Order: sequence, then structure tokens, then C-alpha cells
Amino acid sequence: MQNKVGERSMSFLSRPGVLAGASIVSAAEGQGPLGKCFDVVLGDDKLGAASFEQAELMMFENTVRLACSKAGLAPGDIGCLLAGDLLNQIITANYGARNLGIPLLGLYGACSTMAESLLIGGMLVDGRYASPVACISCSHFSTAERQYRFPLEMGTTDAPTAQRTVTGAGCLLVGDRLPERPALRHCVITGATIGKVVDLGITDAANMGAAMAPAACDTIVTHLSDLNRTPEDYDWIITGDLGEFGARMLHSLLAEQGVDLAGRHLDCGNLIYPAEPKYNCGGSGCGCSAVTLAGHILPKLESGEVKRVLFLATGALMSPTSSLQGESIPGIAHGVVLEHV
Amino acid sequence: MQNKVGERSMSFLSRPGVLAGASIVSAAEGQGPLGKCFDVVLGDDKLGAASFEQAELMMFENTVRLACSKAGLAPGDIGCLLAGDLLNQIITANYGARNLGIPLLGLYGACSTMAESLLIGGMLVDGRYASPVACISCSHFSTAERQYRFPLEMGTTDAPTAQRTVTGAGCLLVGDRLPERPALRHCVITGATIGKVVDLGITDAANMGAAMAPAACDTIVTHLSDLNRTPEDYDWIITGDLGEFGARMLHSLLAEQGVDLAGRHLDCGNLIYPAEPKYNCGGSGCGCSAVTLAGHILPKLESGEVKRVLFLATGALMSPTSSLQGESIPGIAHGVVLEHV
Repeated sequence: MQNKVGERSMSFLSRPGVLAGASIVSAAEGQGPLGKCFDVVLGDDKLGAASFEQAELMMFENTVRLACSKAGLAPGDIGCLLAGDLLNQIITANYGARNLGIPLLGLYGACSTMAESLLIGGMLVDGRYASPVACISCSHFSTAERQYRFPLEMGTTDAPTAQRTVTGAGCLLVGDRLPERPALRHCVITGATIGKVVDLGITDAANMGAAMAPAACDTIVTHLSDLNRTPEDYDWIITGDLGEFGARMLHSLLAEQGVDLAGRHLDCGNLIYPAEPKYNCGGSGCGCSAVTLAGHILPKLESGEVKRVLFLATGALMSPTSSLQGESIPGIAHGVVLEHV
Repeated sequence: MQNKVGERSMSFLSRPGVLAGASIVSAAEGQGPLGKCFDVVLGDDKLGAASFEQAELMMFENTVRLACSKAGLAPGDIGCLLAGDLLNQIITANYGARNLGIPLLGLYGACSTMAESLLIGGMLVDGRYASPVACISCSHFSTAERQYRFPLEMGTTDAPTAQRTVTGAGCLLVGDRLPERPALRHCVITGATIGKVVDLGITDAANMGAAMAPAACDTIVTHLSDLNRTPEDYDWIITGDLGEFGARMLHSLLAEQGVDLAGRHLDCGNLIYPAEPKYNCGGSGCGCSAVTLAGHILPKLESGEVKRVLFLATGALMSPTSSLQGESIPGIAHGVVLEHV
């Protein structure tokens, strides 16, 4: 039985179920239009910890524990954690897996990590290699700024194309569809498309949307061609964190390929923050698409308000080291299809 | 059909084939006892590039191209690259995938990456989600020293427990067993065990062997229990890069669990360097186990001299940031079973 479809896509014929989703964000995301969708909105994004890194770790762990408790499971029941974050050596995922005691496959896909984890997690369950599995990605504004740009204490101003790294963690449990007490009963993963690294030569670390848009375009076009579908086959095509500028760029690039997402495109980076205070071009970070998926999209799929979505988390493969060495910033986008059943 | 076996293991019942292996190393590894096994021994580990990072990237790319050419394939024939390295944001893998034009699933497992990539790659092929796939990991002494420890220019001395990061890239192509012109015909992947993050509280960044040994012990014990096997069922049980100190620690830890590897244990970190000049406790880095597998172990499996091995790449999840914040260094080890058919 061939599960490969077309060039870079695959079908999950057993339709692995999403058993539960959980999301934790900080106050800035809680004030946005999706604020009420998230399970927990933190008052203090340091969580009383000694460092922002420790706070990010607590957020990661608590999100997995919350998803488990919603599905009536303990962390010890989870066969594999598919996890990544933005920190060097993905320390949040590593220490999180240690503290939770769950076997780990550590991933790095920058902000595309949530889709990468669902792609591999879907395969683990569909192929009956492990079940249930927990797919999670996580980011924190303060740890990311220090590592990728400038320490907060420097008080630098933002470029107009800059996006704010979301402080948040989103987790989906994926497994056989009939656990004892699933939190969700009507949401399944039916396929995925592996991303390709695409590079149009962007070198501006304050313009991640432009670095990611070409990869999103490439994966959307390939996905539709592989499955012989059109955008009309989806209620929503959801990109991770292109932001205002990147989303406009995606529409131009898709138009060149004759693809029109008219009215079907959502971008998590554009959805997450309030109009005031304005965070330039919107949200980013691998927590951005993760919390939007867990908090906003899953409930719509569960209720049937939305029947089928293509979830494309988009990553800018930026490294301070390679940027200093004059390298450009390529992007990648993995796609996952979620459906109401 | 359940492919999950026991607590953390899986069987690949279709027995995905290893179609080809390729390895490139620098002069230091070429002078070791395995020197003649590697496809290419570089005279200059900067490869004429402007930076060591650029050299590492060239090594990565060339290794994939070499493996492809051995199997009569072009990079464009490869369905997915499962790749990781030691650099922040796995830039070698990202830029390598861009230059090769192969869809990428980016992994971070520190020095456990080669086994992680074979585990996921084996699943992609066994489950018929993609084929053939390329599994690769890569490290470079000079890029790793600068990022994890001290710039070479400082001329610091090593601790007696220190290990030297291998400059090398190792790649295995995994796919359905009958391509037109496979380089290897008798080597298959039959199963795997997912690693767990284990932490005994090691905080010394110059003693990675001690940080990894507990994880290796945990995965070996779990693997044998999951598959209801004993060490006698394997010709070799191969750890990635425990080095002299870590290997001794592994034997002590296993003895406490009643497991004796007597005569069956190889450690890639102990194998790779010559006796003189002595590099303290041996080799490390995610290239270490990758080149040893591709150059030394695959040919023995192909010829049938060795019938079944458990390949356990071991990773120390070390981060300069978390070390400065007082965190310990946990380890992880993923296991993959390779057999002669």
C-alpha cells in the first residue's frame, strides 16, 4: 500500500485522530483577538523563574501536561514527544522531555516545527510505530530576542517589517481515535507535504516574512499538484507566521503560478496580536502557529464549522553566525492536512 | 499490523534496504585505524573555503552526492533528506538541503542524530511514505570548538576526559531494496528504539562520555527488553561516541542491570583516532558515528562478516547557555538495528 502521493506528499489512510490540544500564551497574545481561545494566559511571562529560559521550559512542560490531562492520559502514556523550539540545541524540548519522562525525537525547523512534528507524528501513528504521540512547539519573546537579535536591555527599536516572537506553547496529542476519554472526537490528520528549503536571497533578519513566503508558495503549489486539488478543496489554508508583509508577498508569488487563495488564507502571525498596541508586521516564532492551531483552529474543526484545512507552518532558517558570514536566510514550509470527521 | 514493539521500539517488517553509504573525513581521522575505510580523506579541512562553516557545508553536500552516485541516483531522485549537525539552527543541514534541492526534515539530537535520522528514515520507507531517503549527520572540529567551547585561537588545553569532535560527514541512502544499480545489496534496517532523555547531573562540558553513558545504558536495556533479546543476539552493539571514560561508565551501569556486552561492544569514539597523537578520550561529534557506520560497519554487514548490529548513536544535550545558567547536561541515545540478508 503506497502512502506516498505525488512528489513530496503522503496520505495517512488510517486517519490518525487529534485527541486533544492545549495552548499557553503570555499577556500580549492574550490581549489579541484570539485571547479567549487559549487555555492559559500568563500574567507574568517569567513565571517566577530565575531566567526566561526556565520560564519557557515551564510553559513547554505545562502545555504537554495539560494536553494529556484533557485526554485523560498521563505523560507516561505518551509513546513519543516530537518537539522543537527556537533555542540553540533546542534546550526547551530536551529539558522538557527529561522532566516529562517521554521518549523524544528532537526537531529543528525554526517556525515550521509544529507542522514538521505533526507530519512525523502522523506517520508514527498511521504506520503503527507508536501511539499516542505528543506534537509540540514553543517559543518565548525574551529568549529569542537575546539569542537572535539584541538583548532586551539594549532597548533597540524595531524595523517596520519586524515581527514579534510569540511567547507560547501549543501541543496536539495524536493517536488511535478511540482512547477512553478523548477531548476531541472529530478531528483527524489525513496527509502531509514535506517542505523544501527555498532561498530568494533575503539577508534582512528583520524581514522574516519575506524569507518564508517563497517556501510557503512552493509547498502550497506542490501540495495542490501532488493531491490534484485546488484551493477550493480547503476551507482554510493557514500559514504560520508570514505576517503582513510576507502574506502580501505570498499572494504575489502564488498569482505568478496561477493560484488564488481568495478568502481562504489565514496567517497565524496576522491573527494573533491586537490592532493596538501594534507589533509591526505581526507575530512569529514556532509558538505562533502552534498556539493558533491548538487554540483557534482545532475547535473549529471539532465543531465542523471548518471541514478541511491545510496547515503550513513556515520557518525562516536564520542563524546569527551565518548572517554575520554574509549568508542569506532561506525558508522552509511543511504542510499538514487536518479534517473534520 | 502493529509495528510498535514493547515500550519504545518498532519493527520495520518490510526491511528497508541500505542502498549505499558514503563518508568524508579530515586528515586526523584518516590517520586512525579506520582511515582506509573512508571514501575521502581531506588534506585540508577548510577545503579552500572562506570559513570552517563553509567547509563543513561542502563536506555535507559532497557526501550526499557521493552516496547518490554510488547508488546510480541523482540528488533529485531522493524523496527526503533526514539531516542534522551540531551548529546552532543546524545551518549545515539547512544550507545543504537548499543546495541539493532535496526536501528536508531537520533534526537535532546532538551526536545521536545519525540514529535518529535512520529511525525516521526507516519509518518513511517502511511505511511507504517516501523512498529513497538520505540519512546524514555531520560535524567539524573547528566549528564545534568555537561554538561549544573556546575559539581555537585561544590555544586552551584539554581536560583528560575531553573528546575531539570528528571532522566528517556520513550518509546512508535507505529505500526499497531493488533500485537499478544499488551499491549495497545485503544490508537492511529491521527496527529501532526511540531514546529517552536521561540526566545523572553531569555539569562538566569536558566530560561528554559521562553525560551520554546513562542514556546509552537506558536504551540498550529497553531495547533488549522490548524485543525480548540478549546481547548474544547481536554481533556488535555499537555506541556512538562515549569514548574511553564513557565506555567504562556504560559497562558499570549495565553491570548493575545484569547486562554484559562482553566482547560485543564497539564505540565509534574509541575506534576513530590513532593511538598517537592521542586525542584524550577519543572522538565525538555527530559525524563520528556517522562516518564509522558508513565506512566501517556497512561493508562488514554487506559482506556478511557481521550479521546483526545494534547501532546506538549517543548525544550529549549540551548548551553553552544552559551550562552558564547552571543546568546539567543530559544525554539521549536512539538505537537502530541493521542486519545482513
